[in-house]
Amino acid sequence: MNALGQHIILDLKDCNRQILNDLPRLQQTLLEAAESTGATIIGKTFHQFSPYGVTGVIAISESHLSIHTWPEFGYAAVDIFTCGENFNARAAAELIIEALQSRSPTLMVIQRGLGVSVASPVA
Amino acid sequence: MNALGQHIILDLKDCNRQILNDLPRLQQTLLEAAESTGATIIGKTFHQFSPYGVTGVIAISESHLSIHTWPEFGYAAVDIFTCGENFNARAAAELIIEALQSRSPTLMVIQRGLGVSVASPVA
Repeated sequence: MNALGQHIILDLKDCNRQILNDLPRLQQTLLEAAESTGATIIGKTFHQFSPYGVTGVIAISESHLSIHTWPEFGYAAVDIFTCGENFNARAAAELIIEALQSRSPTLMVIQRGLGVSVASPVA
Repeated sequence: MNALGQHIILDLKDCNRQILNDLPRLQQTLLEAAESTGATIIGKTFHQFSPYGVTGVIAISESHLSIHTWPEFGYAAVDIFTCGENFNARAAAELIIEALQSRSPTLMVIQRGLGVSVASPVA
């Protein structure tokens, strides 16, 4: 079995803390990231926590984007899971890193479908 | 910064192929997995693909469960992302493995929030 999906794991530190607590802005960012790279959106759910923090998940054709933020730490955990040729996951990752103004992003790609193999951590 | 979230990555091979294409059953399985282990469900979205394949995402308090299935390969990619003490992610993983009747599951745990560090591949 070849790899069926590509899973990008983003740990974004030193983000803009106000943006991390701004649900409408985060939702817009994830939707734009998905749409600008050719994904088809099939569903979404976002939630604002009190006193702060946002969780959001967007389901895309056979894949998903998710975000969980900790404004108090300036940290966001973002996942981009995709399969197929149409959706440019790497471009989506770059767009999200920029939008959250992370000064210390970590990106890792995991190939799914072959068991779990971890490949190419990138700055 | 300590780890803020625990991310379980499940690559489930040799599953029951009929179950992998059964959206209501998969949705029920993920909801039960979440509820039985103490999670609070805040949103969900599921989609049936033609001719086969299901995508589903459940947003839980500050975390999520996701599933993408390839019935033609007997394969499912499942993610369980959680933070906090209330939600027993490992129990949820075991419940899902059993429900999909995977004869070749791979489980990996990634600690999120410290950059990306991969720990303890199991079975």
